[in-house]
Amino acid sequence: MSYYQQHQETLDRAILALRNRTFFAQYPEFPSPKIYGETADEDGRNIFQKHLANKFDELLQPEPSGWIGEEESPYMQQPLNIQYPQFEIDQLISRAQVAFDQWRKVSPKERAGLLVESLERVKDRFFELAYATMHTTGQGFMMAFQASGPHAADRALEAVSLGLEEQLRIPEKVRWEKPMGKYQINLLKEWRLVPKGISLVIGCSTFPTWNSVPGIYASLVAGNPVLVKPHPGAVLPIALFVSEVQKVLKESGLDPQICQLVVDTFASPVAKTLAEHPEVKLIDFTGNSEFGSYLEGLPGKVVFTEKTGVNSVILDSVTDIDKVAQNLGFSLSLYSGQMCTAPQNIYIPKAGIKTPEGSVSLSQFAEKLSESINGLLDNPKAGPFVTGAVQNRITSERVADAEKMDARVLLKSRAIENPMFENARTATPVLLQVESSQKQLYGQELFGPIALLISTKNTDESIELASEQAKLQGAISCGAYTTDPEVREKIADQMSLVATPVSFNLTGGIYLNQHAGFSDFHVTGGNPAGNASFTNPEFVVKRFTVVGMREPVG
Amino acid sequence: MSYYQQHQETLDRAILALRNRTFFAQYPEFPSPKIYGETADEDGRNIFQKHLANKFDELLQPEPSGWIGEEESPYMQQPLNIQYPQFEIDQLISRAQVAFDQWRKVSPKERAGLLVESLERVKDRFFELAYATMHTTGQGFMMAFQASGPHAADRALEAVSLGLEEQLRIPEKVRWEKPMGKYQINLLKEWRLVPKGISLVIGCSTFPTWNSVPGIYASLVAGNPVLVKPHPGAVLPIALFVSEVQKVLKESGLDPQICQLVVDTFASPVAKTLAEHPEVKLIDFTGNSEFGSYLEGLPGKVVFTEKTGVNSVILDSVTDIDKVAQNLGFSLSLYSGQMCTAPQNIYIPKAGIKTPEGSVSLSQFAEKLSESINGLLDNPKAGPFVTGAVQNRITSERVADAEKMDARVLLKSRAIENPMFENARTATPVLLQVESSQKQLYGQELFGPIALLISTKNTDESIELASEQAKLQGAISCGAYTTDPEVREKIADQMSLVATPVSFNLTGGIYLNQHAGFSDFHVTGGNPAGNASFTNPEFVVKRFTVVGMREPVG
Repeated sequence: MSYYQQHQETLDRAILALRNRTFFAQYPEFPSPKIYGETADEDGRNIFQKHLANKFDELLQPEPSGWIGEEESPYMQQPLNIQYPQFEIDQLISRAQVAFDQWRKVSPKERAGLLVESLERVKDRFFELAYATMHTTGQGFMMAFQASGPHAADRALEAVSLGLEEQLRIPEKVRWEKPMGKYQINLLKEWRLVPKGISLVIGCSTFPTWNSVPGIYASLVAGNPVLVKPHPGAVLPIALFVSEVQKVLKESGLDPQICQLVVDTFASPVAKTLAEHPEVKLIDFTGNSEFGSYLEGLPGKVVFTEKTGVNSVILDSVTDIDKVAQNLGFSLSLYSGQMCTAPQNIYIPKAGIKTPEGSVSLSQFAEKLSESINGLLDNPKAGPFVTGAVQNRITSERVADAEKMDARVLLKSRAIENPMFENARTATPVLLQVESSQKQLYGQELFGPIALLISTKNTDESIELASEQAKLQGAISCGAYTTDPEVREKIADQMSLVATPVSFNLTGGIYLNQHAGFSDFHVTGGNPAGNASFTNPEFVVKRFTVVGMREPVG
Repeated sequence: MSYYQQHQETLDRAILALRNRTFFAQYPEFPSPKIYGETADEDGRNIFQKHLANKFDELLQPEPSGWIGEEESPYMQQPLNIQYPQFEIDQLISRAQVAFDQWRKVSPKERAGLLVESLERVKDRFFELAYATMHTTGQGFMMAFQASGPHAADRALEAVSLGLEEQLRIPEKVRWEKPMGKYQINLLKEWRLVPKGISLVIGCSTFPTWNSVPGIYASLVAGNPVLVKPHPGAVLPIALFVSEVQKVLKESGLDPQICQLVVDTFASPVAKTLAEHPEVKLIDFTGNSEFGSYLEGLPGKVVFTEKTGVNSVILDSVTDIDKVAQNLGFSLSLYSGQMCTAPQNIYIPKAGIKTPEGSVSLSQFAEKLSESINGLLDNPKAGPFVTGAVQNRITSERVADAEKMDARVLLKSRAIENPMFENARTATPVLLQVESSQKQLYGQELFGPIALLISTKNTDESIELASEQAKLQGAISCGAYTTDPEVREKIADQMSLVATPVSFNLTGGIYLNQHAGFSDFHVTGGNPAGNASFTNPEFVVKRFTVVGMREPVG
């Protein structure tokens, strides 16, 4: 039984879910012992610890030129000392070229089946993956488990399913019969799906699997060999995916070099060299806007980017202001504002937010928001786990700098204690008050737990500014609170014109930061925050070319 | 009854045909009086003649800043003196912006219905269009009728159908229910399809409608206003399409500026200024590689190009060498080699082409090919109508220069008399013999009726060179003749890797130059001949962005 046959039902259900966009999750997001096994957590932690100060020798990539590794745990502020094999660029490329010729001849269905099998195997390592993610990104355990494990695997499955569907759309062969009056032309037409070539996927330090697997799996299902180049600070999580893909390839009699891990160092990065290599045809990138825009401009490459943005919240009118403050406080605190979907600019009309009890001013809302944040973070059973740790010390410095800006500090950032890791690098959200005229302050991405409450003339100005910032700086999410259908429509219309998804009136256990696989398009591709979208048809169809062959029959 | 309701059946059939890729044509290609009316030909010619030396006043674009027009008939080598309204760039852009806000709110279905209606109206002008095309491009009447009329309309319908299908793929709204153990999250999710913005379609002088309508109609069905910028030498054919679109828009109570014609002059071209305008988001281009590559490199634009290429024929083994010579002779003569699909480099192994009667050497084949060409062109009922006239005098000069190259001239180019137009600029194919080592000669596009018979070591070298040229210079078509299944597979495999469609063993009334709508992907997007393909999903999905809205229910 082939892997396609084994996983056909999963793929069929996934394809259907993508069409319907109703709720679908192949991989349970809750780390329940009932689902993942009684000892799964402990086992995962133990296996993770065995990686520390060791060579990562699972990869099926022989003859490295050396061993390198520079990961550090934001929880311990100490190197993990995991060593990964290093390879020369030429070797990576020539191995990928050899692998290409084999992989392109495997049918899309068999490729899809094999890729789903790799996800099933990663599933058995979700806890190990969670600890690997915690200690590279600084995410709290729950987010590390969900984002790197089930949510990432679902995003990968989404890319595989859509990639398969798009490839199956074109018939393999047809008999084409053209009536010509007295006679008829009969041609046998055949279409070949030709993968573009070597694919390079460049990862980021905060979401090393969630942001990378869509590109990896989309390229692979379309027949392209992939070079996976993680951020040097977050290698282990994606290394687990790569090694499982390699093992399934090998067991299937295929070349594991179809999916190679490329590890580099902070001092000698290889992304640029690889991206410019003439044999590299596809590039997926998550990271800063400068490098992303440089990649987008490379001639002759198909490039998919997720860069940075400035996300807005528009506060107009609400039914329960406390619930709004609760919800937003959580959104701002979650992973210390290091999600690309985290809100930054919160627009409040100077007449205040309309509520059934009268209007709530910016200052009053700031107080409620501060209380909500403090309440959450001072709860020792919640705070440290929601905020996690700060991945990069530059982010901590940015938070400190923010408090020196020409703005009123409404809530100061502080460190919170993590009961398990006394050296954890932490920072709670800083809240600043600025005027709508101070664009030099809020008209830029301030990555990390930094939020600005911006006083506007009215909601029209709030919408205008949120839209303008999305158009100029990019935006990946937007939160809006209004009870007025006309205002709602105006926000939906204006933000959709700048290609920014809007979450309206969220309260309770759902947050604007969350983008669900099989349903929410993550990044739209329509503003400067990125040119690609997880997972729309464009994300997969650009990875192969359809070439027709024809010949007279009979 | 809305235009969508009126044309829904046509659209449904077209969408189905695209999925199946079996023969489909909405518009009959033969200019039969039974189909198009007894007086259609004469009426069309008369109406065309009334355009001459007149203002083209059908466009619903008020207040031109002037009237310009520089078209010349390659058949008469005289100006047509048709004057078109000219507009300032700012005015074109601001009108498009106003129109955008209206057009984007029309549903995809209604847009599609309205666009099909415009094609139905152009259908009534196919003869007028044919004469307009003859006297701008130099095409023979039959090609002018078919390519500019029914075939172009089918290509437009293809783009509309696929554009509609892709927009209907995303549900408008769903209720998303995520089980969370003890409770459930219920969201109403809604997706908006947001057109990218102003679309610019830059036409060419040889196929002014066939190459432009896919981009125009794809952009329009996705809700983008379009600026149609024809080549200054071939305006009238596409002006007829634009004016019919405008009339249907006006009758529907919509702004005719949704589709504007932009005419410029040879001395003051506006394509670059428009392309670089920040409000222009989409660009379709057919033309030379230099300008096409410049457009592809413009940051922040979605660009679709068809540029130039070097098309090959690989001769290995045949069952009937005379039929092959007949077929290729016609392909080389048709519209004097001015089709982007016309063959240029014909590779012949030095041991000759295998036939049932023994091998045929390059010289022997050259003789047969020359005979076939002369036989066709010396037939006064066929020759002048097959070759048509040469659009641009530079092409005639290139033909003359070709005979001075360091190559043996196997057949000289000559002028042939056209019984209806004594001043017609004509040129029959020149055939040259070169060695496979003379890449400086054949490793470039030699646009026009110029073909090179290239002596290779063997078929393997022929394949290698055809593939190499496609990879380096681009290729839009390839002809191959072989009776050996292994050689066939090698050609199919190697040419598909360089994204070049192959027509195998064509003889009789079908030619490698022809790419049928709803079946053949024209240009693949996978080699330097262009980055787009008529009409694959990528060609339409890049013209709009999907943006999600979500809100708790209940």
